[in-house]
Amino acid sequence: MKKRVAVLAGDGIGKEVTNAAMAVLDAVGRRFQHEFEWVHGLLGGDALDQAGHPIPEETVKKCEESDAILLGAIGGPKWDHYPKELRPEKGLLQLRKHFELSVNLRPVQAYKTLLASSPLKEEVAEGVDLVFVRELTGGLYFGEPSYHNDEEAVDTLHYKREEIERVVRFAFEMAKQRRKKVSSVDKANVLESSRLWREVVEEVAADFPDVEYEHMLVDSTAMKLITSPASFDVIVTENMFGDILSDEASVICGSLGMLPSASLRADGFGLYEPVHGSAPDIAGQNIANPLGAILSGAMMLRTAFGMSKEANAVEAAVRTVLEEGYSTAEFKGIGGTVLSTTELTEKVVDHIENEQ
Amino acid sequence: MKKRVAVLAGDGIGKEVTNAAMAVLDAVGRRFQHEFEWVHGLLGGDALDQAGHPIPEETVKKCEESDAILLGAIGGPKWDHYPKELRPEKGLLQLRKHFELSVNLRPVQAYKTLLASSPLKEEVAEGVDLVFVRELTGGLYFGEPSYHNDEEAVDTLHYKREEIERVVRFAFEMAKQRRKKVSSVDKANVLESSRLWREVVEEVAADFPDVEYEHMLVDSTAMKLITSPASFDVIVTENMFGDILSDEASVICGSLGMLPSASLRADGFGLYEPVHGSAPDIAGQNIANPLGAILSGAMMLRTAFGMSKEANAVEAAVRTVLEEGYSTAEFKGIGGTVLSTTELTEKVVDHIENEQ
Ligand SMILES: CC(C)[C@H](C(=O)O)[C@@H](O)C(=O)O
Ligand SMILES: CC(C)[C@H](C(=O)O)[C@@H](O)C(=O)O
Repeated sequence: MKKRVAVLAGDGIGKEVTNAAMAVLDAVGRRFQHEFEWVHGLLGGDALDQAGHPIPEETVKKCEESDAILLGAIGGPKWDHYPKELRPEKGLLQLRKHFELSVNLRPVQAYKTLLASSPLKEEVAEGVDLVFVRELTGGLYFGEPSYHNDEEAVDTLHYKREEIERVVRFAFEMAKQRRKKVSSVDKANVLESSRLWREVVEEVAADFPDVEYEHMLVDSTAMKLITSPASFDVIVTENMFGDILSDEASVICGSLGMLPSASLRADGFGLYEPVHGSAPDIAGQNIANPLGAILSGAMMLRTAFGMSKEANAVEAAVRTVLEEGYSTAEFKGIGGTVLSTTELTEKVVDHIENEQ
Repeated sequence: MKKRVAVLAGDGIGKEVTNAAMAVLDAVGRRFQHEFEWVHGLLGGDALDQAGHPIPEETVKKCEESDAILLGAIGGPKWDHYPKELRPEKGLLQLRKHFELSVNLRPVQAYKTLLASSPLKEEVAEGVDLVFVRELTGGLYFGEPSYHNDEEAVDTLHYKREEIERVVRFAFEMAKQRRKKVSSVDKANVLESSRLWREVVEEVAADFPDVEYEHMLVDSTAMKLITSPASFDVIVTENMFGDILSDEASVICGSLGMLPSASLRADGFGLYEPVHGSAPDIAGQNIANPLGAILSGAMMLRTAFGMSKEANAVEAAVRTVLEEGYSTAEFKGIGGTVLSTTELTEKVVDHIENEQ
């Protein structure tokens, strides 16, 4: 197959990690006879510097003409003083809104060889295998009115039933393919939007009699993600709660740099990006962990292009490389061999090319 | 001194733990020549059952006529189906609003003997000594409009500058008495209310040149509370972020049942309660950990009544009892002697009465 991918490297280490993902996907192409056309677009602070806007029209157009979007990372202190409308984050938010990327998937998995770098006791983090399904284009992020002046400020948490239903249904579908358990997170003892959320969950759940589900409060969930993370399967929640909880969960296995994500439109079109940020402090040093971007590439293969065996090959290669004791500077101190970004990427590429 | 305290035991284990706190404060009274008058009032599900409302008028009146409020815990599945206006939580929220308890303090401390029960590696949790200063009567909890119907839902995150300033100033004052560091948490890359929050923090900080401060995003904070909790001193944030993050932080030292809290009005009047919930599953079994309520009593002595040496005596007694290896069922499995609620309380009382 031939697929066109818009690559938005963005800021900081974004370029290094998207380069790694492209190298790995090119290897997949060679082994499985696919061709990936990479179309580069500006986004974030880089776009602001070069084109005066965090998401230039041309970038949007390139994404529209592609089969999927691969994103690196955006933002950095350099652009923090820009007005709201020009901040790098605004570019990302506009991209989400423009392409209606309403479902954000963030799997978190414990890798045995990395547990030593987890802040949690190994027996607590062991066996974690959960996925966040976060609503991404509603709630406080986009609700109106939203303003502030000298005296007061307002943001609006707004949800339509159909926005809730879409993401909740996605979560139940996903649970069916997994361990058949959905934890729906809200704050129904305080928020009206959470009460509607609960109603919709009840309704959708009725269509999935074989999936077990529970309602949890966001504050209790913040605790349980630390005390028994392995008890979760699929966690579905609204935009802001999802932002906070999925970031919390991203460090419990000591593997933030490893984590991929996907942001999907109803028809399956999507944006793929590692969970980590732009890390300006280590940018340009060839030491960033490329595995989050590489695994995002694997999610793209499976979800955007229906290439399951190709995705499995990438994930298997990553696992093998870790089991061989290779990692990047992030994991310095837990034993094994610390490689540079490009060296580790080469290891993954080698496994993909040579194991058939 | 003679002080009158409104005791709102509430639901579940609320009665057991407030009994413990009263027993300890009575011991303080005997040793230091104070007299505490306990005035009991109904709150939460218990009030709903007995008086048809989660916070009866009489309870409000009793609180108004007291020098401080001691609360146990409220809520439970039994009352989950009640309409919003009658839910136990509504009683608590109305109490906060009525008495303008706008500043919520939640200290989190690592106790060496309990670190084995922390989900975090001991070297990560060791040395944690932080306090949350959470805004408690604004934001999404009380903003209007707030409604839902079949098709959509709205909640409103509203803040006035003065509401932000009050709690931020409190946090800086508190930091002055501690390690002189404030972490202000917001989501300024998305929310307008967070941008006003940041402006106010900058302004207030100018009055405290000897206090170091930083702005942190709520999602990064959710990570850092796990990866390096000992790096925090005073954390100040708005109502909903504070709810989520302070609960997250409450489990990092493995000592949820130990944690006290205070909710204060500008003039110092306040409500004191353990952080833990009503735990209906263990209610009535005399196994709940009373130390959270007892330490809330200590906060009351210090903050409400200016009785510092009395508060210190309670805290020292609690530390000694823990160092002697005593705890409750919550800590079963980490060694030491498991006592019942009343037995552990007796140990604390003994230390207060006998060590001078
Ligand atoms: C950059 C920021 C606007 C964004 C968000 O809050 O959604 C990020 O934290 C994320 O989770 O992808
Ligand atoms: C019971 C509930 C309304 C309350 C809150 O969300 O404030 C509780 O979680 C707390 O933190 O005291």
